[in-house]
Formats: sequence, C-alpha cells, structure tokens
Amino acid sequence: MRRQIALLGCTGSIGVQALDVIARFPGKFKVEALVAFSSHEALFAQVRAFRPKLAGLVVEPKAIPEDLRFARWVFGEDCAAQAARLPEVTDVLAAMVGIAGLSPVLEAIEAGKRILLANKEALVAGGELVMGRARQKGVSILPIDSEHSAIHQCLNGARGNRPRRLILTASGGALRDIAYDDLENAAPADVLAHPTWRMGKKITVDCATMVNKGLEVIEAHHLFGMDPGAIDVVIHPQSFVHSMVEFADGALMAQLGAPDMRVPIAYALGWPRRLPLDDTACDLFSLPPLTFAAPEARRYPCLALAYDALRAGGSAPVALNAANEAAVEGFLRGQIPFGGIARAIASVLEHTQQHSITCLDDILEADRKAREMARLFMGQ
Amino acid sequence: MRRQIALLGCTGSIGVQALDVIARFPGKFKVEALVAFSSHEALFAQVRAFRPKLAGLVVEPKAIPEDLRFARWVFGEDCAAQAARLPEVTDVLAAMVGIAGLSPVLEAIEAGKRILLANKEALVAGGELVMGRARQKGVSILPIDSEHSAIHQCLNGARGNRPRRLILTASGGALRDIAYDDLENAAPADVLAHPTWRMGKKITVDCATMVNKGLEVIEAHHLFGMDPGAIDVVIHPQSFVHSMVEFADGALMAQLGAPDMRVPIAYALGWPRRLPLDDTACDLFSLPPLTFAAPEARRYPCLALAYDALRAGGSAPVALNAANEAAVEGFLRGQIPFGGIARAIASVLEHTQQHSITCLDDILEADRKAREMARLFMGQ
Repeated sequence: MRRQIALLGCTGSIGVQALDVIARFPGKFKVEALVAFSSHEALFAQVRAFRPKLAGLVVEPKAIPEDLRFARWVFGEDCAAQAARLPEVTDVLAAMVGIAGLSPVLEAIEAGKRILLANKEALVAGGELVMGRARQKGVSILPIDSEHSAIHQCLNGARGNRPRRLILTASGGALRDIAYDDLENAAPADVLAHPTWRMGKKITVDCATMVNKGLEVIEAHHLFGMDPGAIDVVIHPQSFVHSMVEFADGALMAQLGAPDMRVPIAYALGWPRRLPLDDTACDLFSLPPLTFAAPEARRYPCLALAYDALRAGGSAPVALNAANEAAVEGFLRGQIPFGGIARAIASVLEHTQQHSITCLDDILEADRKAREMARLFMGQ
Repeated sequence: MRRQIALLGCTGSIGVQALDVIARFPGKFKVEALVAFSSHEALFAQVRAFRPKLAGLVVEPKAIPEDLRFARWVFGEDCAAQAARLPEVTDVLAAMVGIAGLSPVLEAIEAGKRILLANKEALVAGGELVMGRARQKGVSILPIDSEHSAIHQCLNGARGNRPRRLILTASGGALRDIAYDDLENAAPADVLAHPTWRMGKKITVDCATMVNKGLEVIEAHHLFGMDPGAIDVVIHPQSFVHSMVEFADGALMAQLGAPDMRVPIAYALGWPRRLPLDDTACDLFSLPPLTFAAPEARRYPCLALAYDALRAGGSAPVALNAANEAAVEGFLRGQIPFGGIARAIASVLEHTQQHSITCLDDILEADRKAREMARLFMGQ
C-alpha cells in the first residue's frame, strides 16, 4: 500500500527536499495534499507535477491557473488543518515554520495520521499536549530534524535499553570562532553566514545564538522521554556526526553522514524501511578532522535559558520560543544588537507569569503574551 | 535466570576483562567453567575467586592446591571442549587464541550453547561450518571483537534493513606512519609498539601488517552475510569509531567509545540487555581530532591477500591464517624480515592446493599443510 502524504510547508527547504525524495518512489508514496504559506508560483509548479487532491495557500493568490483546477483549493489559516484531516492521507509531513505548525499537527494526531515532524514549535511549545495525544491515539511521531533523526536511528536498535544520555551535536553557528567581545554587536550579515547548512534566516540566527539547540533539547526531552540533565549539547563544527546516544555500558551510538536533509526526510518517510538513495553517500576520506568541544556558557547564553525553560515547564518553553522569534525579528530589522536576543528572552522568561498548559488555547495565549512582552522589552 | 558461563582462555587479556565484567553482576552470571592454556597460577587465583564447577588446563600442572579440589579438574587438548559441553553452561565465551578455538566452538554449538566469540580462527578458518551449524541449531553467535561488536550494535536496530556496506575501522598499526622504504626491515620492537590497544605480540604484529583487519573482513563476511565487495576497511588512527554500517539511504551508523574491551565483552554477555558499567564512559572533549584515510595497498599487502583468500573460499582462508601464524613466529624469532610476512602468505596461497571444507578435519589438515609450506618458504 502506498503511503498517502499531506505535505504542509511544501515550498520551503524541507518541503522541496521531501518532494525530491517522494518523486523517486512513485510506487511507495502518493502526494494527496500540498500546502504552502504564500509562494503560489512554486506551489503551482508542484501541484502540476504531483497532482494532489487538495492544494492550499494561507495567503490566497489572485487566481488559480486553469490547468490546476483539478485539485480542491483551500485558502486561509485553516488550510493546513484541512489537509491534515483529509481522509485519504496516512502521513502528515509537517514542515511549516513557527507556532502555526502546532494546530495542524494536533489535528493530524486526532485524525490518526502518522506525523513526520520538521516543525520545531509543535514540540517546543506543545510537547506534552502533542506527545500525550499521540500516545492516546497510538500515532507515531517521526522526527525529521537531523539531530533527532540521528537519535531515533540510534535508539531504533536499543531493544528496550534506556539510553543513559543523549548527545546533540551543534555546529556552533556562524559566530563560533569570533572574539567574545565582538559578539554583542555582530552584524546580521555575519550571523547569516552559517558554516555548514544552508537554511532560512531565522534558523540561521538561531544557530548563532544556539537557541536552536536549546529548542532541540526541549524537543528531545519530549520525543525520547529523557530528563534535561541527561541531554547534552556538544559543539561539532564539521556537522558530520548528527547526534549520539550513550548507553548504560558507555557505548556511544552515532549517526553520521554528509549534511543532507534528504537522509532524515527519507528515513521518516520510509520508516521502518530505509529508502535507497543513490546520491547521499559520503566520502569519509574527504572529511576534515572531526572535533568535539563543550559550548561556552557565556558565548551561548540562550542554551542555558532553554534548559531553564524546560525545567520550569508549563508555559515557559512557549515563552522562550515566542520571545526568541520576536527578538530575532528585532535583530534582523536592526532594532536590537545580537547580544540583545538573549537579554530579550531572559527578560520575558523572568517577567511572564508561568502557567500550566492544558489545551491549544493556553499555548497560543502564552505565545501571544510573550511576543508582546518581548516587543515591549525591545521598545517597540 | 543467571547465565552460566564457560570461559575458554580465561587467563588471557579478554578472559581477564570478561571476569572483571562478570564479577560486577553476581545476580546475572555464574562462572561454571574456567579453562586456560598453561598459566596455572593465574587460573588458581581465578578458580579461588569464581568457584567454577570445572577447571581445565591444556598443560597439566605439577599439582592442584588443596583448597581448589572442589572443582572438577581436566587437562590436555580436550579440556576446552569438555567445558564447552558442560550441561549447566548456557554461554561459552571463546577467548582462546588460534585454531585450537575452532573445535570447542563447534562442540558448544552442537550442545546448543550461546557463543560469545573472541576467537578469530573459528570464523576465519571455519566460517561456513560454524555459521552453518549455528543456524541449524538456532544458536546465537555474538562477536566480542570491538569492530564486529560495533557492527552488531549498528545492525541491532536495522529492523530487517540490509546494510549497503560495512566499514571496519583500523588503527593502521605501529608502522602506519614510517617511511615506506623502512617497512621491509622494520624491527620487532617497532612493530610491537601499537598506537592504541595493548595486546599480545601476535595480534600486534597482525595490526602492523593489517592481516588482522583482513581476518576481520573474513569474519564480518560470515557473521553478517555480506559480500567481500561490500566490506571496506578504513584507517582511523584514533581508534574511537569502532566500526560503521552504511544503509541504503547513505546514513552511516557507528559505535564509538574509548578503546576498552570491557564494552564489547559486556555487550555480548548481556545481550540483548546493556549492562551498566560505570567506568567506561568517554570524554568527548579530550579526544584528538578524528580522521579517516584509505589504507595504502603497497603498505598493507596482507589486506589484499585476505580479500583474495575470502573470494577464493574453501581452504584459502585457512591457509591465509595458518601461513600468517607461522610467518609471524618466524618474524618474531628473527628468521624473516617484516616484509617477508606478506611474501610468505602470498607464496602459501599461491602454492597450496585449494580444496573445499566439509568438516573440522578438512580445516585442520589445510591448516597443517599451510604451516608446513610457510616453514618451507622461510627455509626452516
């Protein structure tokens, strides 16, 4: 039986690479739904190629080309959720960016779909809710992040052996090697020069602050049920070891490879079968020497903030994520210096009332309040 | 239920480390039999500590201490096989060196014992016989070599996904970095200075010629059912990545850790449960940079000879192993230069009649003939 895919965030980097993988296995996958935010020209081309039953755009375009009217078109905020609920769909690949990913993921879980998860916020902000509902509905959540995919691959064979420690690797971002004193006022252009992965602006800034890795620690906590104290972050500038797991006997299992997101995408799509890819193998002999270093606390204050938020629980991770989004926007607009991102997050965490999360509305409310607070902090 | 262990080769390096692991888990393991070659003082101390039902020495000592007569003592060539057949025994840890390990392993398989295998020759010389009988009897063979243990750990979670490639890591041995022209006449003292692992003389010479890695390729072929062309050897001087597996999607899985044989020993003993060890964790931050390089064919001619023998099949791997043993003895005695080891093996492989192997006697006969031939070559 072919897996029937709804791809949410289909015109972004993960979405495009997912379609690259899917297109190679027409016997295994059928794209049933494609949803994008606003890139209608890119979506039109994808709809033409993959002929889904449903196509969606959050931002409605002026017109839909004549030859693409075979699809049912939906527009507006709710279009991702509609795609996620589509009866034909077996797997929802959630690759949209931001807190907007949370609601469609919850909808997909309620509808019993398998979740291939590239959206960070669903777990960072909604971890307990999402994992709790997934358990109740018996739904698998397969991570597409390279780090969590690596850990999933390492734990796949654990046969009930609990890991002792998860080790998330981090490139260290674009500012890893600049003088500490130059961090505070690093310019957006420097911050956006990521050493290994080509990604969007927001995520590239998140790599430089390493808030990104902090969010991944929170995700790993939810995905793999590990205490914050058993999740470590290690700087590995070569981005070749995608993450590791330490078992009770001291053995480390690692997943390695060229930094190519099609590998974790294919892993999640095919799971538990590996899909053959003929252009992702890496040449060990062309690798630079692989190194590991501890992240300096003063260079990456956002990392400790993320651990604090995870330990505080409730709405704190939501606030962390929302404050970071607002602060990164502020930084990219030139409203605050690079060093101000961590200060904005810290201030929001300190001044927001923490509360427990029982439903989606609790999360959206905490998210809204934290953004407001961050904007106040930035003097907007 | 406690696993009841027969430990063959108990006074060697692997044997001693196995007892170190076993002693930590008195609720999980009981030592039922201890067998050594000739180190009777060391054996006496072990028998005193572990109180096995049976104790054996190939070379009979003058006397058995009064207080150790509670054990049944057996002597001579057959004592390992007697230990392997002991009804109480559930697991036979075969850590004796050389072709003498083959017969007790076959006996243990016939008796339905689980095999924890640290003896190379059982698979190098007897691969088809051993694996064939193990399949028929439904007996598990768990490798204790760090490389094969790493691959076992990587494949543990493969869920039926066939690997595309096995990648055995090799330190490159003591002569990895000397000038090629100095190889021919390298002195035993230089050859015995292994960069990473502390081991016996024979195995340390085997690392320098890399015949060792060739033997592991043969073992990996039998253990994991992979074609010779899908088993690669990579020089990794830091000996931190113990081996890797490449899957169809290009993902590499690796097992990493400090070079501590107690980890693969504990893995095999406890399998499928990981045993908690509190002194084997490694500090990633103290590692030297990890590098990978292709082995130079002219520096390591024995590696190609091993692939040739594996491809030829039948008695060729037996001859390779036996010729190497004889040649290493000759080298350590100063009868041939270092470069003569590979020439002796090549000459034996070239001049011995290859035949098929159907029983233990075929193997022992091929082994004997190859040794004779090697000695002839060396002018003995």
